[in-house]
Amino acid sequence: MEKIKPYLKKVQYYETDMMSVVHHSNYIRWFEEARMDYLEQAQFPYQGIEAQGIFIPVLEASCKYRQAVRFGETVQIETEVTRVSSVRFTLGYRVYDKAHKTLHATGSTAHCFLGQDFSPLSIQRRMPEFYQFLREHCQKTKDLQ
Amino acid sequence: MEKIKPYLKKVQYYETDMMSVVHHSNYIRWFEEARMDYLEQAQFPYQGIEAQGIFIPVLEASCKYRQAVRFGETVQIETEVTRVSSVRFTLGYRVYDKAHKTLHATGSTAHCFLGQDFSPLSIQRRMPEFYQFLREHCQKTKDLQ
Amino acid sequence: MEKIKPYLKKVQYYETDMMSVVHHSNYIRWFEEARMDYLEQAQFPYQGIEAQGIFIPVLEASCKYRQAVRFGETVQIETEVTRVSSVRFTLGYRVYDKAHKTLHATGSTAHCFLGQDFSPLSIQRRMPEFYQFLREHCQKTKDLQ
Amino acid sequence: MEKIKPYLKKVQYYETDMMSVVHHSNYIRWFEEARMDYLEQAQFPYQGIEAQGIFIPVLEASCKYRQAVRFGETVQIETEVTRVSSVRFTLGYRVYDKAHKTLHATGSTAHCFLGQDFSPLSIQRRMPEFYQFLREHCQKTKDLQ
Repeated sequence: MEKIKPYLKKVQYYETDMMSVVHHSNYIRWFEEARMDYLEQAQFPYQGIEAQGIFIPVLEASCKYRQAVRFGETVQIETEVTRVSSVRFTLGYRVYDKAHKTLHATGSTAHCFLGQDFSPLSIQRRMPEFYQFLREHCQKTKDLQ
Repeated sequence: MEKIKPYLKKVQYYETDMMSVVHHSNYIRWFEEARMDYLEQAQFPYQGIEAQGIFIPVLEASCKYRQAVRFGETVQIETEVTRVSSVRFTLGYRVYDKAHKTLHATGSTAHCFLGQDFSPLSIQRRMPEFYQFLREHCQKTKDLQ
Repeated sequence: MEKIKPYLKKVQYYETDMMSVVHHSNYIRWFEEARMDYLEQAQFPYQGIEAQGIFIPVLEASCKYRQAVRFGETVQIETEVTRVSSVRFTLGYRVYDKAHKTLHATGSTAHCFLGQDFSPLSIQRRMPEFYQFLREHCQKTKDLQ
Repeated sequence: MEKIKPYLKKVQYYETDMMSVVHHSNYIRWFEEARMDYLEQAQFPYQGIEAQGIFIPVLEASCKYRQAVRFGETVQIETEVTRVSSVRFTLGYRVYDKAHKTLHATGSTAHCFLGQDFSPLSIQRRMPEFYQFLREHCQKTKDLQ
């Protein structure tokens, strides 16, 4: 199994606030960017999943902010699968800066699977190969937060 | 015909950037807020229009920034219809601060009407009463920009 | 002590995503809107606090999404103080829709106090009246999440 | 003089709206992303300019939307200098999708130069090498819009 690379993201000026650092809400968006990149690297691009009529909404999201990130920096986000069942999974995120590898934030998101009528479905039945992927990559560690 | 009131909007912290003022992209979002408020006051709430299978996408948007707006301020946005035809219309916006009535920005957006298949439609035929409203409120002045 | 009113917020079109619901990251922004409104009602407007050289950054943020919110709705957010010390405090949020009072989401944010040099400070010493307010309003309940 | 490469940008899920396309306000943010990338490629990274106490605020911004951009696409943005004086300059932008090179949008932004006290300054005097760069890259064509 090929190793999935961390997601690299250049901080944008419009992501800063008047405290001269990245506004905290943007980390939740960065987790989504990292998640989409992770799925794409795993050969399960999200647009392909939605094209099959499967939605993966966010049930929970959280972030711990350790050190502010500033404009001009590039962050490196490591994503890992921390829990999986046939109807739910959880991802953990670690946000480093690319230059010094300082840990700036950690976070997690929990997800379920919905069909086009927005009713829950078992991913084990609908996309067994994706379920298999998640199982194999699950770190079996406790959540980051 | 009842006069339409300006839209009041409290500036949010997350709308500021590291220059300690509101990021310029947010004015385009404020124009949308003002537009939706205008349509609602006019008794044509946008969700009602979309519920009839009519979309009103933005064809053009522009803004002239005169004086920065800061967190803690409340802006007052005046919206007016500046051009109307059966397939297109243009709105103009003036952004004041509520406290001192200083003009902070002006802008405009141009729109057309699309059906559910995203093909253009004549609003004069599909929603004659909305077309009539736009005609009556059209300032017949040149665009703000 | 006067009761603090819930924060009312009209959902914006630009807050939706292609799942036709409000994007999950915006709830974190709504918590900020509700927090600023809470502080203002409490007679401690955030811009006044920053003007004294005190910043209140977010250390942690989390949200549990129960039921999607859609464009056209108005949400009603209840904010409460759930933990207080001289150097930290935590707020809890409940997001209802105004029309049916359905609970759509719950969340929390944790904060500390920093001086202009970004070093931690004791709010009990620097703004004893604000500390007093937080203490008196602390629900002494466990965090919402 | 080395040729400056177009800016590539992957469309994010959080940039879409309930019309299932990228929300129009995000193009103004993309112009900023392309502008920052342009300055960096030109060896005048914006954080370096601000570090010298020079701000380059946006005076005007506009966009013409020709064809919607969707999640899953990568856009390619071409930036060019369209007007320059010692106190102002204008940039033009063309947004293509990387896959088919369809033109999705065009736009422009106008800028001035401010010192730390937010008073206008002559970039010809303060940063003659940057002024020289802008002059040499100015397309001497009329604005895109």
